Amino acid sequence: MKGLKGALMFAQSGGPTSVINASAAGVFIEGLKSEMITEVYGAAHGIRGILNEEFYDISKEDMEELLLLKNTPSSALGSVRYKLKDASVDDTDYKRLLEVFKKYNVRYFFYNGGNDSMDTCNKISKYMAKSGYEMNVIGVPKTIDNDLFGTDHCPGFASAAKYIATSIMEINLDAKVYDTPMICVIEVMGRNAGWLTAAAQLANAKGLGADLIYLPEVAFDVNKFVADVKDVMAKNNNKCIAVVSEGIKNADGVLVCEALGEAGARDSFGHAQLGGVAATLSNIVKAETGSKVRAIELSLMQRCAAHCASATDVEETFEAGKQAVRAAVNGETDKMVCYARAEGEEYKCEYKLLPLELAANTEKTVPMEWIINNGTGISDEFVKYALPLIQGEVNMKKEDGLPRFAKLKKVLATKK
Amino acid sequence: MKGLKGALMFAQSGGPTSVINASAAGVFIEGLKSEMITEVYGAAHGIRGILNEEFYDISKEDMEELLLLKNTPSSALGSVRYKLKDASVDDTDYKRLLEVFKKYNVRYFFYNGGNDSMDTCNKISKYMAKSGYEMNVIGVPKTIDNDLFGTDHCPGFASAAKYIATSIMEINLDAKVYDTPMICVIEVMGRNAGWLTAAAQLANAKGLGADLIYLPEVAFDVNKFVADVKDVMAKNNNKCIAVVSEGIKNADGVLVCEALGEAGARDSFGHAQLGGVAATLSNIVKAETGSKVRAIELSLMQRCAAHCASATDVEETFEAGKQAVRAAVNGETDKMVCYARAEGEEYKCEYKLLPLELAANTEKTVPMEWIINNGTGISDEFVKYALPLIQGEVNMKKEDGLPRFAKLKKVLATKK
Repeated sequence: MKGLKGALMFAQSGGPTSVINASAAGVFIEGLKSEMITEVYGAAHGIRGILNEEFYDISKEDMEELLLLKNTPSSALGSVRYKLKDASVDDTDYKRLLEVFKKYNVRYFFYNGGNDSMDTCNKISKYMAKSGYEMNVIGVPKTIDNDLFGTDHCPGFASAAKYIATSIMEINLDAKVYDTPMICVIEVMGRNAGWLTAAAQLANAKGLGADLIYLPEVAFDVNKFVADVKDVMAKNNNKCIAVVSEGIKNADGVLVCEALGEAGARDSFGHAQLGGVAATLSNIVKAETGSKVRAIELSLMQRCAAHCASATDVEETFEAGKQAVRAAVNGETDKMVCYARAEGEEYKCEYKLLPLELAANTEKTVPMEWIINNGTGISDEFVKYALPLIQGEVNMKKEDGLPRFAKLKKVLATKK
Repeated sequence: MKGLKGALMFAQSGGPTSVINASAAGVFIEGLKSEMITEVYGAAHGIRGILNEEFYDISKEDMEELLLLKNTPSSALGSVRYKLKDASVDDTDYKRLLEVFKKYNVRYFFYNGGNDSMDTCNKISKYMAKSGYEMNVIGVPKTIDNDLFGTDHCPGFASAAKYIATSIMEINLDAKVYDTPMICVIEVMGRNAGWLTAAAQLANAKGLGADLIYLPEVAFDVNKFVADVKDVMAKNNNKCIAVVSEGIKNADGVLVCEALGEAGARDSFGHAQLGGVAATLSNIVKAETGSKVRAIELSLMQRCAAHCASATDVEETFEAGKQAVRAAVNGETDKMVCYARAEGEEYKCEYKLLPLELAANTEKTVPMEWIINNGTGISDEFVKYALPLIQGEVNMKKEDGLPRFAKLKKVLATKK
């Protein structure tokens, strides 16, 4: 059954990526073209913008700027980490959402985010269906972590992986420049899934990678780590590059950055604020070896370095946004757009739909059989999987030798 | 007086840059073409390679790989931090150098480095002249710090500045994504000169920069810093991005990273190992404000991110290598190649020669009149100076979506 004629609401959630706005561009451009869609709204700071009736009228934007969104990192509309309660416990927010949707005749809602956001999206979809308000709700995936269930890969992952592999190749050349001992510990994002850390293996495949790679999928033992580093140093002309996930945990499941480093804050989802594990491990190996040690956090750069994005990722992410709108207009609801790899030798991405409840809150981690060398290496299976995704260079618009990112007018929709 | 027919020796020294090998390519390619030059040698790990008679026969390399050096970061021959004693104190190393130069009939010596390396180069030049061995010695400048005296700018600076400005623009978009308080402290390299830290102003000129910029040229007061951050937070929707040089010092001239953070090691020149000041300052403002604070070190990436190099810098650095060879063959010695800005509206780089003793050990810092806003801002004069230098994108060769860096055979020269 086709959707009703009405307004489109799009919102971004969670940690941004360097290509997240490509989905926004896809949703907006497809939405503005559709005869079924009367208005195109972009919510300021995710779900909160809807609750507060703060959303932008996208028809007021220039098409050229909407296209520049494809290469503009971070959530252009603003993001949020806001957890909706279960409607059975407290339905205040849901009632308010329904009120706003009705007031603005919003018949299409798209939520762009990771696991938590797909859960939020699923809850909203269920509530609206139960309340009898006819609308179609589609999740648009987004996460550098690549940990969403049911999709071959996630929008944003490949660009972060490309930046990480490129940077590790460059760091590898730099770190080996002196003929003196040198240990380099590089920290990569990833709470429970080691996909991004595994991207170091793409650099290894080019002969300029890491000697040791530690994923959160395997329990981390600091004594073994020190022994591993010493072993590499002995074999490798006193040089060692180790890449660690910020999310590595000890055998008791305690984050290494909490067990050995400073205890961090927690966000509104109860997730620990990660980071600092490279510095902690560096201090330990420095004390143990006396070598020069450098701790490098790829920090925010790995999720916002749009200048080093994968063109494949950008185009797929843009298409994911368009596919979401087409699906919703054609009557699909309570689904997430996902990627499938077409059969055959040549890489080709196909777009499918997955029930939201399957995507919500299920984390897909790196297959254990891809983790080799006693938990310090990644197999070629990963390279075969990830290499097609990082292909292609973005032809980013530049101005004075620097990126020309999208400048949105952000005209608030007229209050109704 | 033209130089004698003989061998060419080239060596790289000090911290690498993302374009340092462009000078190597220039020296090698020009050297291989010259009728006055019988052999082209590249020393392994700088001056130490000459002392140990470990140098590569560059004629054995493929021209295609030598051209790929233009976009290959870090010192391809290996670097060194080795301080020659004054010949009047201990001339052992000088005697050995003379012995090796005579044995291989080296009549042209090129040393590629920063302040310390120009001093070494000057000492060698003086000793060879005094000893009556006829050879021409030319320094090829290299430093991301941009602190060499007598040159408009230094090879390597602009590429680091481009990476820093680009990354700050991207971080700016990422750091502002939530509607909650956020402080970001970004640490940039630079021991005594704030040129690289000032590059944040290039991002400011695009409206996506830093609120506060602290250079090592101005004494740093941590209480004022906390007050500055609070002031920006109050005016700026609870967001603040501060960029600090790793070399900031307090009023007593003590490095802030030593005064407040962990004491670091010292290298063979007696320079303190820097780094960590962003983390230290982050902890302080976190305690003072209770806000979420992120410390970001641009670390090695700022000096090795060849994928984001300035095409202007690459071409000038390549040309600097060629000019060095031409000057030496034409009889120049004891000079450093330097850049001058041609008169006129349009930017154009001219290549000149400067006596080595003027370049050696003199640090050029950022003019105090360019540092504004009570030591927290940079004037437009800097942007006018630096903007032409970061123009142009490198068309880096890629393989499988990743950089294809030069692969040298590194065939050791036959021992004589």
